[in-house]
Amino acid sequence: MFNTIKVIGFDADDTLWVNETYFRDAEETFAQWLSPFETPNTIHQELFKKEIANLPVYGYGIKGFTLSMVEAALELSHGRVKPETINDILALGKEMINKPVELLDGVAEVLEALYGKYKLIVLTKGDLLDQKRKLEKSNLTKYFHHIEVMTEKNEQDYTDVLRHLEIKPQEFLMVGNSLKSDVLPLLKIKSNAVHIPFHTTWMHEMVTEKNLADETYLELTHIKELLNYVK
Amino acid sequence: MFNTIKVIGFDADDTLWVNETYFRDAEETFAQWLSPFETPNTIHQELFKKEIANLPVYGYGIKGFTLSMVEAALELSHGRVKPETINDILALGKEMINKPVELLDGVAEVLEALYGKYKLIVLTKGDLLDQKRKLEKSNLTKYFHHIEVMTEKNEQDYTDVLRHLEIKPQEFLMVGNSLKSDVLPLLKIKSNAVHIPFHTTWMHEMVTEKNLADETYLELTHIKELLNYVK
Repeated sequence: MFNTIKVIGFDADDTLWVNETYFRDAEETFAQWLSPFETPNTIHQELFKKEIANLPVYGYGIKGFTLSMVEAALELSHGRVKPETINDILALGKEMINKPVELLDGVAEVLEALYGKYKLIVLTKGDLLDQKRKLEKSNLTKYFHHIEVMTEKNEQDYTDVLRHLEIKPQEFLMVGNSLKSDVLPLLKIKSNAVHIPFHTTWMHEMVTEKNLADETYLELTHIKELLNYVK
Repeated sequence: MFNTIKVIGFDADDTLWVNETYFRDAEETFAQWLSPFETPNTIHQELFKKEIANLPVYGYGIKGFTLSMVEAALELSHGRVKPETINDILALGKEMINKPVELLDGVAEVLEALYGKYKLIVLTKGDLLDQKRKLEKSNLTKYFHHIEVMTEKNEQDYTDVLRHLEIKPQEFLMVGNSLKSDVLPLLKIKSNAVHIPFHTTWMHEMVTEKNLADETYLELTHIKELLNYVK
């Protein structure tokens, strides 16, 4: 299987290291802080709506998330939120940015095994500075031939980046935790993808069954299993 | 002059289009909003300090600037700033992000004249999404072979990007408005640079005379003059 593959692309957040968990934790903390004003359910819902509404303006990443939390706090409290809470939100955002990188189990081992046999690259969404910093902290930079931080991950974005890096779609395999961003667009452009779900998926990255119809792809439960397929 | 040049790199903000002006305008607005609490001078000073302190965490760009404004507003007012003002700051940030792109005079003409004779690239600092969006709005994308958004622009960063793009330093010419970011690092790595000052320079981008000693570089008052030196 995957005999034609020469280049393997890895998503970063929740594929190489823990990410989504930190956002979920931050949302819990936020809901607690705002609890004098609304029910937890409403708070979560409104924060999510705010994030999605701001996505075209802010893009992905912690800074945009922090700004969305501030905006949601003002709205949910009808302007009655304490200034200290706004300050706490800013501090929470900085804390997220400064978090150490926690590699997922087996990642270093798998990269070590594939290094030299395949050209390895990182294709990640998110904030440029955040992602570069995380890569440095991860100690994984040495394995990667190229690191591309993308503003979006749709078919056109993948087509562009593969062309730019002079990689043929059929020689490329993408590995990631998001069906929407790491798997489906690759299948659409006649490339290859492996799905390794992370235990938490952001609602925005969910796909409906309709989108999944007629698509076949390999799904693994652990990144180490990748070595059974690409040797 | 510049006979060895094959690739020309352009800085983006305040070299291709207006940028710094919008930040200065925002700072003025911010100072007005905070005027019940402090003198304009103190407000400007403290906001600048806050931006610099946050630079390692947030990096360059409007989102980090907006977060710094919120933090500075809370501090300068000792928590007495109105929630509406926080909301106004968030709106101001979004307004900056959504501003149309205003090309500097002569830019399109110069790129048109150089296109096909040299490989043209963009090397810019800032937020990835902001810069990609501005490039799209600018209608200049067609001229550029490659666009690189960098987290910093020091000697090592330029060395890395030139190596990655397989450009020899002596065949490269950088054009930009910042001596610190677009000129001096290039001279240090035996490459070439042209300085085109913009009327406003952010204090953080200023260089002292000491740093400038023994460096010679071409300084132009208008980007159109570039055509007298290349080709």
